Amino acid sequence: MKPNGTVLVTGGAGYVGSHTVVELLNSNYSVIAIDNLVNCYAHKKEKPESLKRVEQLTGQTIVFYDVDIRNRQALDKIFKSHKIDSVIHFAALKAVGESVKTPLTYYQNNIAGSSTLFEVMQANGVKNVVFSSSATVYGTPQFLPMTEDHPTGQNCTNPYGKTKYFVEEILKDVCIADPDWKVISLRYFNPVGAHESGHIGEDPSGVPNNLMPYISQVAIGRREKLYVFGDDYPTKDGTGVRDYIHITDLAIGHLKALQKMSEPDFKGWKTYNLGTGQGYSVLELIEAFSKASGKKINYAIVHRREGDVATSYADPSLARKELHWQATKGIDEMCRDTWKWQKQNPNGFKKE
Amino acid sequence: MKPNGTVLVTGGAGYVGSHTVVELLNSNYSVIAIDNLVNCYAHKKEKPESLKRVEQLTGQTIVFYDVDIRNRQALDKIFKSHKIDSVIHFAALKAVGESVKTPLTYYQNNIAGSSTLFEVMQANGVKNVVFSSSATVYGTPQFLPMTEDHPTGQNCTNPYGKTKYFVEEILKDVCIADPDWKVISLRYFNPVGAHESGHIGEDPSGVPNNLMPYISQVAIGRREKLYVFGDDYPTKDGTGVRDYIHITDLAIGHLKALQKMSEPDFKGWKTYNLGTGQGYSVLELIEAFSKASGKKINYAIVHRREGDVATSYADPSLARKELHWQATKGIDEMCRDTWKWQKQNPNGFKKE
Repeated sequence: MKPNGTVLVTGGAGYVGSHTVVELLNSNYSVIAIDNLVNCYAHKKEKPESLKRVEQLTGQTIVFYDVDIRNRQALDKIFKSHKIDSVIHFAALKAVGESVKTPLTYYQNNIAGSSTLFEVMQANGVKNVVFSSSATVYGTPQFLPMTEDHPTGQNCTNPYGKTKYFVEEILKDVCIADPDWKVISLRYFNPVGAHESGHIGEDPSGVPNNLMPYISQVAIGRREKLYVFGDDYPTKDGTGVRDYIHITDLAIGHLKALQKMSEPDFKGWKTYNLGTGQGYSVLELIEAFSKASGKKINYAIVHRREGDVATSYADPSLARKELHWQATKGIDEMCRDTWKWQKQNPNGFKKE
Repeated sequence: MKPNGTVLVTGGAGYVGSHTVVELLNSNYSVIAIDNLVNCYAHKKEKPESLKRVEQLTGQTIVFYDVDIRNRQALDKIFKSHKIDSVIHFAALKAVGESVKTPLTYYQNNIAGSSTLFEVMQANGVKNVVFSSSATVYGTPQFLPMTEDHPTGQNCTNPYGKTKYFVEEILKDVCIADPDWKVISLRYFNPVGAHESGHIGEDPSGVPNNLMPYISQVAIGRREKLYVFGDDYPTKDGTGVRDYIHITDLAIGHLKALQKMSEPDFKGWKTYNLGTGQGYSVLELIEAFSKASGKKINYAIVHRREGDVATSYADPSLARKELHWQATKGIDEMCRDTWKWQKQNPNGFKKE
């Protein structure tokens, strides 16, 4: 048991989860990771490859359970077998387009699952949680940059976004019901990049849903070209503008949240944006990736995609002020580290 | 099997459920009722008393299962054992104050439960559902009377209301994902009264959460006095104004919804208010009940209750136009039938 206590990380084998586990281990937290492995590669019944790599990177051991958060009995057994101080809750399905096609699967996994997790936490007296939320809770931006008091839940155009919003509402109600709870909901803008070692990174199964892994797979030759959805938005070059944030910066935000929650006067529900505050267009990201990789990125402009907004970026000043956190890595490092990961692992975690 | 097909009624032993089952049976529907019996009285392992009374009233038989909607296997077995045409989904926890104290229980029962039900329906090809929603989804009224296009989900002050709102959102997404679904969400204003026979009625366990059963229990002598929460609202007499609707009118609204869904061109998601369009104050309801019962109702004015609004009433014209439904029973009949039920059953369904 390490000096900063034990953190249970749900979805610990995933992209944000695994990078956060690295930072936790490097900062003297013990980690118990759980994951149902639906979105990550594990060889047979072994520990998922991402977490094996984390163990190699850090020289430390992670307790891992192949468990679904909807499995109340299994969760309860884990809470009874370990002294858990806090939970970082990443486990969720996260593909926007898929969520439109199979909404019930999303509501079951993300809402029923989260609510089961919180019930088991409550029953076991563990009442500290950092929740992996998303800027998608803001829906279509009503003003920019978006601050934490931007309205949420209005014009959420897809079930994925609604699940993040609903879980935030559930957590708010949990804090009202029981003032012992401490909850920080971190609203991510667009996480990209990889650990600077290139040993772990984003490993989407099938066609990537997000821009950066798509660009990267075009650069490595796994995909022929990138489709850019619309170049007639009211932005600098007509393509959509987003607030990209390096995954390591994002991971460190979770540690800062844990530290914040450990302050004696912290209580109840609180939310922070995690973004850089800086917007880049699709074409700018392509250009930066070209530079970092030395590869030409083939792309084609196609029609706008329903539900996309022109511009989205964070006001990250609250996190700077209260969490003493801010992003330190810029777009060049985001591209450099993505490319390093992609080159070292052209097919992601799966070896063949 | 009856000419209008078979309806599965979840929460069929409850207040709205049991009254709706009466109307279904009287209109040539076969009924399968399920209920987890947490909010209704059943003697040992027998059929719940409310449904026994419905069978006596109608001279017909109800297939009943003691099943919780969160139990996927049991639900699936029911769908595989019967040819079910439609579902009327009442099953939910419904006490506003309790929901503030135990939000996770509400989210589990109402959201996880509903989503499990819809998944089992989808898997079994049953895609018609009437959902028991509530005017509480409108939150604090932004205008009166409230039409169906009043914003929802904003300023829902309690988890109960949020669960109704969330389930509506889930159903909207289900309809987007699969155009074969037909969904009508009925937004109830304030259901009161009892079947005119006095054989079935509202039977709250413990202290009633709603005004009418409280008044009625004061009239019969089970409670000493009624507490009226605030007489300084901007209403005709300072007490809160609500749109009360007779339970039999409400029940018939569900049949009208089933009929609407069976029209060949009906598809997707649709919502209707069920109310009279007429608001009565607390003092007016007390007065009407006094008249109907011949009893003096002791009451005391106390402070406002957090989360209560001054005035709420429906614009029920959409249901009149499209469902060919309108409330036919006024406040005197609401009080008369409540009192008949209360007199015949001073302790509700429980005999001793």
